[in-house]
Amino acid sequence: MTEKKLSRIGELFLLDKIRQDFPTKSGKVLVGIGDDAAVIRPEAGNLLLTTDMMVAEVHFDLRFTTPYQLGFKLVSVNVSDIYAMGGTPSYILLNMALPEDTNMKFVEMFFLGIKEAMSFYKIKLIGGDISSAHKSMSLSATLVGYASKPVRRSGAKAGDRIYVTGNLGDSACGLELMRKIKKPVPIQNKTKNKAQGAQSNDHMRYVPFKGLSWTTVEPLLRRHLMPIARNPKGFAHKATSMIDISDGLLLDLTRLCNESNVGARVYIENIPLSNELKKTASHIGISPVSLALSGGEDYELLFTAQTGKKVKGIYIGEITKSERVLVDKAGREKPFTAEGYQHFRISK
Amino acid sequence: MTEKKLSRIGELFLLDKIRQDFPTKSGKVLVGIGDDAAVIRPEAGNLLLTTDMMVAEVHFDLRFTTPYQLGFKLVSVNVSDIYAMGGTPSYILLNMALPEDTNMKFVEMFFLGIKEAMSFYKIKLIGGDISSAHKSMSLSATLVGYASKPVRRSGAKAGDRIYVTGNLGDSACGLELMRKIKKPVPIQNKTKNKAQGAQSNDHMRYVPFKGLSWTTVEPLLRRHLMPIARNPKGFAHKATSMIDISDGLLLDLTRLCNESNVGARVYIENIPLSNELKKTASHIGISPVSLALSGGEDYELLFTAQTGKKVKGIYIGEITKSERVLVDKAGREKPFTAEGYQHFRISK
Repeated sequence: MTEKKLSRIGELFLLDKIRQDFPTKSGKVLVGIGDDAAVIRPEAGNLLLTTDMMVAEVHFDLRFTTPYQLGFKLVSVNVSDIYAMGGTPSYILLNMALPEDTNMKFVEMFFLGIKEAMSFYKIKLIGGDISSAHKSMSLSATLVGYASKPVRRSGAKAGDRIYVTGNLGDSACGLELMRKIKKPVPIQNKTKNKAQGAQSNDHMRYVPFKGLSWTTVEPLLRRHLMPIARNPKGFAHKATSMIDISDGLLLDLTRLCNESNVGARVYIENIPLSNELKKTASHIGISPVSLALSGGEDYELLFTAQTGKKVKGIYIGEITKSERVLVDKAGREKPFTAEGYQHFRISK
Repeated sequence: MTEKKLSRIGELFLLDKIRQDFPTKSGKVLVGIGDDAAVIRPEAGNLLLTTDMMVAEVHFDLRFTTPYQLGFKLVSVNVSDIYAMGGTPSYILLNMALPEDTNMKFVEMFFLGIKEAMSFYKIKLIGGDISSAHKSMSLSATLVGYASKPVRRSGAKAGDRIYVTGNLGDSACGLELMRKIKKPVPIQNKTKNKAQGAQSNDHMRYVPFKGLSWTTVEPLLRRHLMPIARNPKGFAHKATSMIDISDGLLLDLTRLCNESNVGARVYIENIPLSNELKKTASHIGISPVSLALSGGEDYELLFTAQTGKKVKGIYIGEITKSERVLVDKAGREKPFTAEGYQHFRISK
């Protein structure tokens, strides 16, 4: 069964399997998978809608990721966009264009990743589309959520403080590690991984540099392969603006500044870096700060709040009227643009 | 400008252009394109959500279609799923994975097609995602709509009559013509096409068989290249079940029967065939009935209603308890399955 190729099994069979695996009709879902459209009784509040693609050889490399991780990540990156609006995710629709030689085992593991992420974020699958693909795999998801008071990118005001929810650069460092490792690393969700941690000798084959340990590289790989979106519940109501960091701090901060028509002063020393990043970056020969500034896919939240408001976040700078500068330890200022990121991408 | 390649112009520029072209903030759209998610104030009634992909070399062939037609069709096939629930489409989100050598002219014409379809169906673009693609183009859309009383596939009862909204097989015949023509045909929306009709001598180079005229093949090509989704307003409240015919009458009727747990008796003679189809199919050497039964992408609606209800539709048969048969002119019955379609696909 699991050795069968997708083309043999066919779309109809696969759809039936998905319907069995993901029963959706319940509560506010009047019609789930299996009709021309899903039918939802909308909740109170504003409806949030977002969609994000993951394209093979652009967003992921099938030699580096397991299908389980791919499914989990596809959900996380879309949930992250709902969280970035201060919202609660509720429903997901999935699109998958799969090459005809994709085997059923791949599809099963992909859906296992989807399922674990759905359970983690408490969302339901209500629809989607499956197609063969002539060449490379292409995935997308649409997330539906709610927010009583959506937090926009455009609400930052000069004088607001800038915060991030966690360490930056880990995911980009994880990607650099994957480029050395060049094979899938069997990282699963946290609970399962504890068991794996016990056999850490096995995992040394995924440590590409002498002098590094599995416990150092594992969190970086995890951040890249199976990112967890940050839930802003608890501080979203205090945020004046918010965005998720998917393309790197400088690019996403530039987006926020552009929408708010403001500038920003960021204190490099305040940018939170994990010990694992600091240890590993030197082995790779990249500055950890440059990974934190320009590396993508951290899926931390970047938000602003009025000075004096107590928020759960790491203070990294202030919103200015228009100047956009990085400030180093010695107090020297350097202008920044989103370009930093684009150069980084080209050099990849 | 229009000669520039997408990779040079970049995602950010393209997004800015789209935001200018598709201003969305108005009325119930609190946040449109340009934030982490769109924000909508939901209307009364049930929310409908559907998503459909169009993948290069699976759903379309870039040698055969213009980017304008592709954009228009992407909207139509998704609107069709909302109509098939008896709903009104409201919002669209778009995903595009475009090969890096896609030029800006292509993107502009693609968006022109999207825009004309959006205006035709009175829907608004509220979000999406743009990515480069390593190899082939992959498109998808998510449609959001409303229905006070959604019409499901599962409501058909034995004794109900089966109806379709229009001629079947035209689109499949149009596809067969395209396989002979092997180049894009400049069909645009109806109003523009009238002007084109005047220069029909020009169009004879798109007529692949002697003895056929442009006025015969044009409607078939149009149905394939630029399908129009059928709005069920006016009869949806009388329908007991409904589905759109995207994969052929037999396959979609089988889906409806499976969901309703019933059978169907279809009178072949009642299946509406256009004169253009009858004329053209004989030149191609395919039976027009087989195109009507198994050809996909007609985007007509297939629905059932209680006997005695007056509905705007073409009566093609009745729902039975379980037997699924085609009845010919002489009254002979032949069982049908969805297989008919799959064989047809394999032979393509």
